[in-house]
Amino acid sequence: MPRTKVQIKRIGVLTGGGDAPGLNAVIRAVVKVATREYGLTVIGFEDGFGGLIENRARRLTEKEVVGILPRGGTILGTTNRDNPFHYPVEENGEVVYKDVSGRVMENLAGHGIQGMVIIGGDGSLKIAEELWKRYSLPVIGVPKTIDNDLLATDQTFGFDTAVTTATEALDKLHTTAESHHRVMVLEVMGRYAGWIALHAGVAGGADVILIPEIPFTFEKVCEKVRERRRAGKKFSIVVVAEGAKPVGGELVVKKVVEGSFEPLRLGGIGNVVGDKIEEMTGIETRVTVLGHLQRGGSPTSFDRILATRFGAAAVNFLMEGRYGEMVCLRTPDIGSVPLAEATGAMKRVALGNDLVRAARQMGISFGD
Amino acid sequence: MPRTKVQIKRIGVLTGGGDAPGLNAVIRAVVKVATREYGLTVIGFEDGFGGLIENRARRLTEKEVVGILPRGGTILGTTNRDNPFHYPVEENGEVVYKDVSGRVMENLAGHGIQGMVIIGGDGSLKIAEELWKRYSLPVIGVPKTIDNDLLATDQTFGFDTAVTTATEALDKLHTTAESHHRVMVLEVMGRYAGWIALHAGVAGGADVILIPEIPFTFEKVCEKVRERRRAGKKFSIVVVAEGAKPVGGELVVKKVVEGSFEPLRLGGIGNVVGDKIEEMTGIETRVTVLGHLQRGGSPTSFDRILATRFGAAAVNFLMEGRYGEMVCLRTPDIGSVPLAEATGAMKRVALGNDLVRAARQMGISFGD
Amino acid sequence: MPRTKVQIKRIGVLTGGGDAPGLNAVIRAVVKVATREYGLTVIGFEDGFGGLIENRARRLTEKEVVGILPRGGTILGTTNRDNPFHYPVEENGEVVYKDVSGRVMENLAGHGIQGMVIIGGDGSLKIAEELWKRYSLPVIGVPKTIDNDLLATDQTFGFDTAVTTATEALDKLHTTAESHHRVMVLEVMGRYAGWIALHAGVAGGADVILIPEIPFTFEKVCEKVRERRRAGKKFSIVVVAEGAKPVGGELVVKKVVEGSFEPLRLGGIGNVVGDKIEEMTGIETRVTVLGHLQRGGSPTSFDRILATRFGAAAVNFLMEGRYGEMVCLRTPDIGSVPLAEATGAMKRVALGNDLVRAARQMGISFGD
Amino acid sequence: MPRTKVQIKRIGVLTGGGDAPGLNAVIRAVVKVATREYGLTVIGFEDGFGGLIENRARRLTEKEVVGILPRGGTILGTTNRDNPFHYPVEENGEVVYKDVSGRVMENLAGHGIQGMVIIGGDGSLKIAEELWKRYSLPVIGVPKTIDNDLLATDQTFGFDTAVTTATEALDKLHTTAESHHRVMVLEVMGRYAGWIALHAGVAGGADVILIPEIPFTFEKVCEKVRERRRAGKKFSIVVVAEGAKPVGGELVVKKVVEGSFEPLRLGGIGNVVGDKIEEMTGIETRVTVLGHLQRGGSPTSFDRILATRFGAAAVNFLMEGRYGEMVCLRTPDIGSVPLAEATGAMKRVALGNDLVRAARQMGISFGD
Repeated sequence: MPRTKVQIKRIGVLTGGGDAPGLNAVIRAVVKVATREYGLTVIGFEDGFGGLIENRARRLTEKEVVGILPRGGTILGTTNRDNPFHYPVEENGEVVYKDVSGRVMENLAGHGIQGMVIIGGDGSLKIAEELWKRYSLPVIGVPKTIDNDLLATDQTFGFDTAVTTATEALDKLHTTAESHHRVMVLEVMGRYAGWIALHAGVAGGADVILIPEIPFTFEKVCEKVRERRRAGKKFSIVVVAEGAKPVGGELVVKKVVEGSFEPLRLGGIGNVVGDKIEEMTGIETRVTVLGHLQRGGSPTSFDRILATRFGAAAVNFLMEGRYGEMVCLRTPDIGSVPLAEATGAMKRVALGNDLVRAARQMGISFGD
Repeated sequence: MPRTKVQIKRIGVLTGGGDAPGLNAVIRAVVKVATREYGLTVIGFEDGFGGLIENRARRLTEKEVVGILPRGGTILGTTNRDNPFHYPVEENGEVVYKDVSGRVMENLAGHGIQGMVIIGGDGSLKIAEELWKRYSLPVIGVPKTIDNDLLATDQTFGFDTAVTTATEALDKLHTTAESHHRVMVLEVMGRYAGWIALHAGVAGGADVILIPEIPFTFEKVCEKVRERRRAGKKFSIVVVAEGAKPVGGELVVKKVVEGSFEPLRLGGIGNVVGDKIEEMTGIETRVTVLGHLQRGGSPTSFDRILATRFGAAAVNFLMEGRYGEMVCLRTPDIGSVPLAEATGAMKRVALGNDLVRAARQMGISFGD
Repeated sequence: MPRTKVQIKRIGVLTGGGDAPGLNAVIRAVVKVATREYGLTVIGFEDGFGGLIENRARRLTEKEVVGILPRGGTILGTTNRDNPFHYPVEENGEVVYKDVSGRVMENLAGHGIQGMVIIGGDGSLKIAEELWKRYSLPVIGVPKTIDNDLLATDQTFGFDTAVTTATEALDKLHTTAESHHRVMVLEVMGRYAGWIALHAGVAGGADVILIPEIPFTFEKVCEKVRERRRAGKKFSIVVVAEGAKPVGGELVVKKVVEGSFEPLRLGGIGNVVGDKIEEMTGIETRVTVLGHLQRGGSPTSFDRILATRFGAAAVNFLMEGRYGEMVCLRTPDIGSVPLAEATGAMKRVALGNDLVRAARQMGISFGD
Repeated sequence: MPRTKVQIKRIGVLTGGGDAPGLNAVIRAVVKVATREYGLTVIGFEDGFGGLIENRARRLTEKEVVGILPRGGTILGTTNRDNPFHYPVEENGEVVYKDVSGRVMENLAGHGIQGMVIIGGDGSLKIAEELWKRYSLPVIGVPKTIDNDLLATDQTFGFDTAVTTATEALDKLHTTAESHHRVMVLEVMGRYAGWIALHAGVAGGADVILIPEIPFTFEKVCEKVRERRRAGKKFSIVVVAEGAKPVGGELVVKKVVEGSFEPLRLGGIGNVVGDKIEEMTGIETRVTVLGHLQRGGSPTSFDRILATRFGAAAVNFLMEGRYGEMVCLRTPDIGSVPLAEATGAMKRVALGNDLVRAARQMGISFGD
């Protein structure tokens, strides 16, 4: 891909995918650096690629980003939907999926935008890559995954805040577990990678950590609980990543209709684990599903800084002509990597990971 | 009941019922005031009335209470079970319920204990009252209900911490609700009284608050959500007390078996409300059940102080011969009230409550 | 004072004096209740009475108060200066103090304002009273003092947040005091009343609490520190209200010029106490002055609720014709009291206060 | 240095230098891994090298480390003094400094200790190195500096907590600065390196950041404050590292005696900067010195994890015969480096640092 440096005067920015603490800090850095350092005009598109397709946009000046650094969420809005290369359009009363990327390019041209900063997860970055490849649109990606499961960067913003929230929850559950001699199960995020569970579990003093990378058996989990009881420790703390799975089996959790109202969002793996422990050990067990609390709230100082560095670098790289790349953390530096290499390469917890090893050595069970 | 003042040299203390932030602060104040001010010996019974029945006890000196002021839970352990007047005993291979209160009195005599501080909820305080009435055991109660639903005291410790935890959760949900244009539902504690939901809802800027005292209709709840959308506010926050109920109906939520594992602790009213809103408005809705997080963690400064005042007053009142009473907050003073009057008298949210009125005036819907 | 009920269509609001967490929550409640419940127009004056005098004002609709509930400070700005009855005016190159209250009334008339909500401390409320008495301006006061030293109300907003901040500081100092076997001194706010020091001291497990109401001697303070050391407790925590004073003496702390720069804001009583302890006991002592951190930050849920109730009541009372009054907390109700009675009546810590008694019984020294 | 692997059965551990959040997490990991994984006996020495010299020690089992993970400080105690190679001994009524390292080796032999984990700053690690070089004592160092100014490791524990505390302080000061249109100055730690000021300043949205690495002029600082005022921003936030210095000058801050008590710990650079700004701009300025609050409190999840990894690695490396080394973070791995290389090599903020560049591009002034 030739890197012909474009004369950039106006840039666009959008946030796509699930929200993560630090998104606003990225937007703020993008706007401040673009306007102060390079005298650019910045246009923000609303609700991810939806706004780019439907041309919902507004100008972002320094005034718009005042006070947003400590705020969670994204002032631009975001969605998990709306792929311009596969967009639902109604035709003759039916919904068909079309490529509307041409409309996107028209909208950009209409705003006079020569470059885009696209902040998002794997899905958003793949769209960014496609826009770059197909239309040579100068684009720079900023990775966003609260799960920290991207191989191309040492860390992503939002992860530290999520781990902090989960650790605070474990600190709280500890006192109630102790007082009631219970098993407390906490389900945290992590569908494919167990980073949040691993980190929060170690930081929160868990006894069992279940992650997608290490299939567990209920027997091993209960063995740990019983071992603690024999040693006079009357409570246990279990952290379960939402994607954790027992050996050899998929969990089938279906939606059921019964009673006078139609229930219910059934619980996930956390509740399954809790029920099994109570059943197999006879020890009172309680389950908490942390859910959306992990995505919300004011970002930690770590995430504010990483997000700020990413946002500033995104603009700098765009002005240097590093198109089609994604910013990344290469400790202690901020670097970039081609979008083509970045997306799809997942960083999972390796079995030889030193934190896993340390956890095992301290007596934490992974249920295997 | 004659108040013959007993010469007290040794006292016992126990914590009963669900744990609440501040229990340790009460225990600490009891031990410090008893030993320093009155030169008493203090015996702590483990796991509520269970320890009193089975004579599991240990001496508490100042050393045992060092560092527990900021810690949640109770160093003595607690349970919701174990009533000495109705205690399960195995006889001829069958479990029968017996009155073992005589054994309790023997245990107390064995320790040379002349007075008891009983910290607990309605159930524990009723047992305390019975021990006082039947055996003239000098007893003083300390009320503990995280729901703050006791008529006899202006406030109970643990409530402020629970409201703080719920408010912090709402602050977090706000940012993610805004970013995704979603309805966020938060289920909080409060089976019979909606104090936590009301306070956290107002403090956390909720749009809808559903409490047991005000039956709601799904139509009214959705009306509020739709009204906000029409006004350009794309998200809504709904707080639901676990005991909230729709007009004219009990919720039947049953346990269902399906799939390869046996699910599941089905969600409660929070999930029901979330499903209905999504179904009726078509707006993406997410539900978080705060659960045990509300009972845990370090007590707020308010709760530490109230718990300390209660603990100190309990010992003072016991030494003054105010037996069969419960300490209470009569702002700004600590007073006492006969246990017989205190238990069973529930403080529910009155419809004319000024906070309910203020909430309505600010546009918060109670779903009625 | 005759209470002729005025037909009110437009009201003004201002915040005066030092800022306190919860001010924004009051403003928000005023605006929401005024507009939604009564259809009023609300004008906000900037920077306390300064904005009223200089006619710096802006309209406040619901839009202006979105998102301010959890935010500290005041969106209207505030100052400790600017009394319309004693206002500095330059005349012939000299500053003379004049009564410019007539100008205030003209400004109000210009906006068509028939009633004012004045949120402020003793100084602001006295001005409010004067405006009511002199001009029969329908005015309602909302008390604001972070020190909680107003007799006419059970509590003021901001106090709980300040105590929380001070308690968190004590929790932090505890660990470092323990590790280094040091005496840690924390100076907190409270020039005339020791409520913050008393509450934070008890909540934070202090060993010595020094407040304006109880003159102390350095000898007694050191006695406590030495007593602890003899008992094997190698550290001590001392909380000092900024207005605490030793027996029989004013502290003379002067500004000194020395060295290559002109120093310095000299430390206050906290540093004096720290130096004396180190000198008299030979134990390493460190001092922290909490200062403005106590005024800042997101209000606690308690303060948000109290502030909201105050704000809503202020508008309701104004519409009911309760002019010249101040809203107040009469647990569990919100009431009102004539401004004439409210101002100047200070609530200080009584020696017989049950919290002081409990603190003493637990071994906390007040240095007397 | 030959690495003859010793058969280790008993190890010692101590913490030296100023305390830092995470010390307890290191101790816990050392004890857990040593006992569970290797069956070792662990002896903890009290108060740094003082305990090693005076043979104040106690056995540490898993029981001793229960519950300490979330607690700040160190259960072993620590000091900045007590170098066994230069130890004050009284001889003939005079204090002379002697080498008492022989006594240290005798004490270790008396306990049957074959290896030491020494957790500390530059001073402690130099002593560790000397013990290894002179006596071939198998020793492994764990770096501890809250300032994060050690070249040999990507990060040290305690730093993230300190930055978090400073950022929270800035969040609080922001609201009060805004409300009162003031300049708020926050002095943070960092005598030789400005990492805390830089990170907290960026995370807390500061307008000016002054660090030891970049000499500043008061004129440039005030220029920024005035520039903001001209742009309608009525407040400014200034973060000052305690070691920040104006161009071309040492600050002479002397202790002065005046008034009826002997003042005072004079303020440091924070107060100097605050006074100058107020004097030169005429804008009200307030100064807060964060001081010891930065060292205290519960470690963040990040610091708990890093400390745990360091502690586990220390024991593993010791058992692998990697003597005379210091554990370090080489993202994403834990590695080690010879003590001789580690000590004395300071990591200061480079002018080309990407965070400094990003900060400048966003309009933050470094006063140069």
